[in-house]
Amino acid sequence: MAGFNVRTVLVTGANRGIGLELVKQLLEKSSPPEWVFATCRDPEGERAQQLKNLVSRHPNLVIVALEATDPASIKAAATRVEEHLKGSGLNLLINNAAIGGNGTLESETLDDMSLVYTTNVTGPLLVSQAFLPLLKKAAQGSNQKGLSCSKAAIVNMSSEAGSIQNVFIWHLGQAIAYRCSKAALNMLTKCQSLGYEGDGILSIAVHPGWVQTDMGSFMAPVTVDASVRGILNVLPTLSEKDNGAFVSWEGKVLPW
Amino acid sequence: MAGFNVRTVLVTGANRGIGLELVKQLLEKSSPPEWVFATCRDPEGERAQQLKNLVSRHPNLVIVALEATDPASIKAAATRVEEHLKGSGLNLLINNAAIGGNGTLESETLDDMSLVYTTNVTGPLLVSQAFLPLLKKAAQGSNQKGLSCSKAAIVNMSSEAGSIQNVFIWHLGQAIAYRCSKAALNMLTKCQSLGYEGDGILSIAVHPGWVQTDMGSFMAPVTVDASVRGILNVLPTLSEKDNGAFVSWEGKVLPW
Ligand SMILES: NC(=O)c1ccc[n+]([C@@H]2O[C@H](COP(=O)([O-])OP(=O)(O)OC[C@H]3O[C@@H](n4cnc5c(N)ncnc54)[C@H](OP(=O)(O)O)[C@@H]3O)[C@@H](O)[C@H]2O)c1
Ligand SMILES: NC(=O)c1ccc[n+]([C@@H]2O[C@H](COP(=O)([O-])OP(=O)(O)OC[C@H]3O[C@@H](n4cnc5c(N)ncnc54)[C@H](OP(=O)(O)O)[C@@H]3O)[C@@H](O)[C@H]2O)c1
Repeated sequence: MAGFNVRTVLVTGANRGIGLELVKQLLEKSSPPEWVFATCRDPEGERAQQLKNLVSRHPNLVIVALEATDPASIKAAATRVEEHLKGSGLNLLINNAAIGGNGTLESETLDDMSLVYTTNVTGPLLVSQAFLPLLKKAAQGSNQKGLSCSKAAIVNMSSEAGSIQNVFIWHLGQAIAYRCSKAALNMLTKCQSLGYEGDGILSIAVHPGWVQTDMGSFMAPVTVDASVRGILNVLPTLSEKDNGAFVSWEGKVLPW
Repeated sequence: MAGFNVRTVLVTGANRGIGLELVKQLLEKSSPPEWVFATCRDPEGERAQQLKNLVSRHPNLVIVALEATDPASIKAAATRVEEHLKGSGLNLLINNAAIGGNGTLESETLDDMSLVYTTNVTGPLLVSQAFLPLLKKAAQGSNQKGLSCSKAAIVNMSSEAGSIQNVFIWHLGQAIAYRCSKAALNMLTKCQSLGYEGDGILSIAVHPGWVQTDMGSFMAPVTVDASVRGILNVLPTLSEKDNGAFVSWEGKVLPW
């Protein structure tokens, strides 16, 4: 993580799981970011307690309300962050918030397909739209050549379950809505890489491993600590040659 | 098309474009199917006129109402087809109905993302669920070994625009909602291939070419006639070794 001097970073779905651990490890770096924006659905509620505990020790942590399925909430979050940044940009946007689901080919419903897609794909699209001016500002304000996560980047937390080639752990659950959403998120990432390259913004889809969180369950082989340590080791190694790629927490390129 | 003796076939979105041409060419075969079910949103309306003209010449054509975003309409269509088949199965289900869209990374909205996904991905999922008993019946009633389109198959009309690898004609339109939906449809096809293989059902994603229809526009290089002739030449060549693949109207395997 030596060269990873990201000044400002935002993580969605940061009140638990991988999102919370990303925030923690970013704050615990020897040279932590100037600002870490941790978003969650209800900053006042009980589910944000762990984030609130962190604020007392880390004055550079800002908790922001963001419901990924609500365009107005997303816009309000962007306004709040912009006010906070007082004219500087956002270097790193991590679209981490997502929901799972265990629907099978037989049981999957329209409502579940829609909710999972809106949360896991439309959410990251709208969040990227809303924070684009701040990402552009970060890119413009940087004297780094090429693309990097410390200059300006969108990291979409995808899943190997979104790999059409590999069809990760099918025997443990069909999770149709989830798999379809993550394949679509990989496509969105590829589109963002083409659309935002000219603005100096890197776009990456990351598979965090199969991780011990509420979503990953106790069966998962990877600890949250190891997953996030891996991701934070991989991000600083990424450059323009990786733009639009699908990489794992161990730095491996995954097939679509 | 010599070996393509499919007895019963259903095509969604069959009142115009590629769907209509599929119905026409199937009916015009030297040994046409026993039944061709052509579905459209409003069989009584003006938009179904070309289908209605065909019925007078082809008593084996049955027009059925099916709105791909409405679970109740899909179930009613399956009941109608089941009654019509009087105990025999459905060999070939072609999920062709879809909508396009020209949204960019900047302009794409939640509503557009949702409508395109529901039509292009959830629709094919629900239609496949509803017709599964008839597809299984066709597979069980067949003495063919392995998998084939004349035994029992789901063909999902995808698009090379859904290839994350290729990002087809990006310079002509970002079409974010559409690209994301077709990548997700490819994932659905892969899942169906795993889920339904044991039932003797083949699942395939097909790219029809860039075709001169309302959706493809006048700029498209491929005529509807050539596209459908190509597709109907490719389908009979597919077997269990192609299950879950993404193939073009020219028989080429496309990357995810
Ligand atoms: N765990 C794994 O094995 C695994 C594997 C591959 C990929 N991933 C991906 O990694 C990311 C994090 O997963 P995780 O395991 O940490 O999941 P998790 O423990 O279930 O946490 C999900 C987070 O997303 C938030 N969230 C869900 N829906 C939201 C919405 N509509 N608006 C705002 N926030 C929302 C949740 O907030 P609430 O507390 O308010 O619900 C929570 O903070 C996800 O993108 C997931 O798909 C995980
Ligand atoms: N044309 C191309 O270049 C091209 C390229 C790649 C893939 N494709 C794919 O090929 C398939 C056919 O495309 P096309 O060019 O023939 O498109 P098209 O000319 O626009 O026709 C679309 C058909 O889908 C129907 N449809 C749309 N929404 C529906 C819904 N909610 N419920 C039921 N039916 C619905 C339409 O019915 P209405 O008349 O009622 O609207 C129409 O029959 C699509 O899956 C498309 O994505 C086309």
